[in-house]
Amino acid sequence: MIKFTINKSAFLSNLRVAKQAIGSKIAIPALSKFKIVVTAKGIELTASNGQTSIVKMLPVDDKDLGMLIESEGSILLEAIFFDSVISQLPDVTFELEEMENHQVLLRSGKSEITLKGQDADLYPRIETIQSAPFAKIEIGKLKQIFNEVAFAASTQESRPVLTGVHMMLIEHQILVVVATDSHRLSRRETRLESFGEDFEVVIPNRAVSGFGNIFSDDEEKVSIYLTSTSVLFKTETINFYSRLIEGAYPDTDRLIPEDVFYSLDLEFDVSELLHAMNRARLLTAGMQNGTVKLSVSDDKDILSVNSPEIGSSYEELNVLEKNGANLDISFNPQFIIDALKVVKEPTVRFRFISNVRPFIILPKEEGANFIQLITPIRTN
Amino acid sequence: MIKFTINKSAFLSNLRVAKQAIGSKIAIPALSKFKIVVTAKGIELTASNGQTSIVKMLPVDDKDLGMLIESEGSILLEAIFFDSVISQLPDVTFELEEMENHQVLLRSGKSEITLKGQDADLYPRIETIQSAPFAKIEIGKLKQIFNEVAFAASTQESRPVLTGVHMMLIEHQILVVVATDSHRLSRRETRLESFGEDFEVVIPNRAVSGFGNIFSDDEEKVSIYLTSTSVLFKTETINFYSRLIEGAYPDTDRLIPEDVFYSLDLEFDVSELLHAMNRARLLTAGMQNGTVKLSVSDDKDILSVNSPEIGSSYEELNVLEKNGANLDISFNPQFIIDALKVVKEPTVRFRFISNVRPFIILPKEEGANFIQLITPIRTN
Repeated sequence: MIKFTINKSAFLSNLRVAKQAIGSKIAIPALSKFKIVVTAKGIELTASNGQTSIVKMLPVDDKDLGMLIESEGSILLEAIFFDSVISQLPDVTFELEEMENHQVLLRSGKSEITLKGQDADLYPRIETIQSAPFAKIEIGKLKQIFNEVAFAASTQESRPVLTGVHMMLIEHQILVVVATDSHRLSRRETRLESFGEDFEVVIPNRAVSGFGNIFSDDEEKVSIYLTSTSVLFKTETINFYSRLIEGAYPDTDRLIPEDVFYSLDLEFDVSELLHAMNRARLLTAGMQNGTVKLSVSDDKDILSVNSPEIGSSYEELNVLEKNGANLDISFNPQFIIDALKVVKEPTVRFRFISNVRPFIILPKEEGANFIQLITPIRTN
Repeated sequence: MIKFTINKSAFLSNLRVAKQAIGSKIAIPALSKFKIVVTAKGIELTASNGQTSIVKMLPVDDKDLGMLIESEGSILLEAIFFDSVISQLPDVTFELEEMENHQVLLRSGKSEITLKGQDADLYPRIETIQSAPFAKIEIGKLKQIFNEVAFAASTQESRPVLTGVHMMLIEHQILVVVATDSHRLSRRETRLESFGEDFEVVIPNRAVSGFGNIFSDDEEKVSIYLTSTSVLFKTETINFYSRLIEGAYPDTDRLIPEDVFYSLDLEFDVSELLHAMNRARLLTAGMQNGTVKLSVSDDKDILSVNSPEIGSSYEELNVLEKNGANLDISFNPQFIIDALKVVKEPTVRFRFISNVRPFIILPKEEGANFIQLITPIRTN
């Protein structure tokens, strides 16, 4: 039966890493609980919503935890409630002792709290992955990639595969991450330092967006393990499992036009253009499928909106560099805003083919490693 | 037809004072709009939800506004949208010019935005109050009073008068502010520096809780004006009107027991007790009408909860000062938490009569000027 003493706030921050897997919809009762396993090596906290699972290890030799294990064992405790109770304990440390009938007694300062727990055997088995890692990458780098790409995934369940993020390793070393909702696409290519076996999976967007909150040390490296149904992101103290989305992801590379087709290149200051798009978007608020028009002519480059209900806007854009033919093209300003928000460089390049063909957005320096594609809206 | 130039961010902060009166439910279409009146004296911004109205004056001689009025007039503009558009303008100043058909042209930097407005005559008349002020008080002081009292008002519409805050001037100088939901009561008494005519009104809680966001300068004095149906809080640049709640407020002073009846006085550190109550409340989370028990005996003072579903808690309280008979009393911990949160002093006194009679909570130093009353819960 479990008995240990530990630093409250250090325990709590570990608990909150695991807690992120607890869902708002609880599929089976045991999944509303933490599984706590105490061994001579330390404490292992597990939480899961059936789709994603997090196992957080608290090693006994981690000085920050001030951990003293007197007795080993395992138990299930109601997750949200346990978190609240721990956070309210009066002292800087607390003792957790398992009593009869899976009850747990928490002692801290002058406070004694008894909680009802459950047998750890009631917890579903989390898949373990035995293979070698397929890839290894710095956490900060992978966070950035996910941030650049994931927003473009679809929110429509009609084509489930598009609600995920497509991740591939090609040529044993090039990581390609793509998402598209079929109106816009974002694609990031990164050469890894390590070599691995080529793979191709579709990761649910929820797991991708959760990644950044689960792994906090940007310098640390995370290993990516795969089975046919799951992905595991693994560091020394965190195992983050997610189910994969089944089904073939479309071949998106063929959507990106070849260089020879472009008829107009424009360069903008990212922040200036973002502000102009935000203003323009306001005027589209009252319209269904509100569009903004970009008119590129010899003397001026104008962004304009005409919304019969609300009013109109007209703004001359500051183009840093222009090459090619004049063009009038209309698009959903939200797509441009989303695209610009993930561009880290100060200058961005737009490349157009015609007013009915998708156009691409590239950071000026990095170029083709990070391509975004947006479909214009046909007006007239 | 209106035409003026003004500093964008200064205009925006004034606009946002008025905007607080815009409701989420719009009773009549005109109330979704700002009324903007421009005269030689400056700009007047009006917003209202029918129950509360705010008129914000922007005097022409306010240097921060950098205002230049070229032409006077009045117009209605869609409030939320106008606020968004102004906030997105590119330059530090903008020009607003009224065009044909109540259209308004905003010019800022290279951006030109045309908005559709409406005739100002479509706006409902805001009641004007001509009387002398009934009372005058520092804004910071009145904010504190409202904060100390308003939380105790009822949220149940079954007795509308209890959803408001009772405000009286007695003996021409003593301001008494009370709220109760019939389970707990909070009452603050303040001697004003100025004299006024006695009055008694019930102000909707929404107006009371909005007060602190509308008036920002705590040093400034606000004058209180009354009609039979409305209250007006007025400073040099803000008129804040609220409808009153009709109906007689109960005589709450008779609820506060006389000194002779108390059988037990306890003093606590506010912050320590608040933490203990928060812990105890957690354990009541799963129970309907969850109660916490305070057991005062010769050797120990214990706060305990027993929740059959979740668990139990037991905590020895640190009592700073104790006078009187032993007692076991049960109550809703949320009421104590709410009460302690508004006590500014570090030490608080509880005074008990018996375990079935309401008890009172007083800040130790200030005593009877700020009384809170809580009804215990009968158990067994």
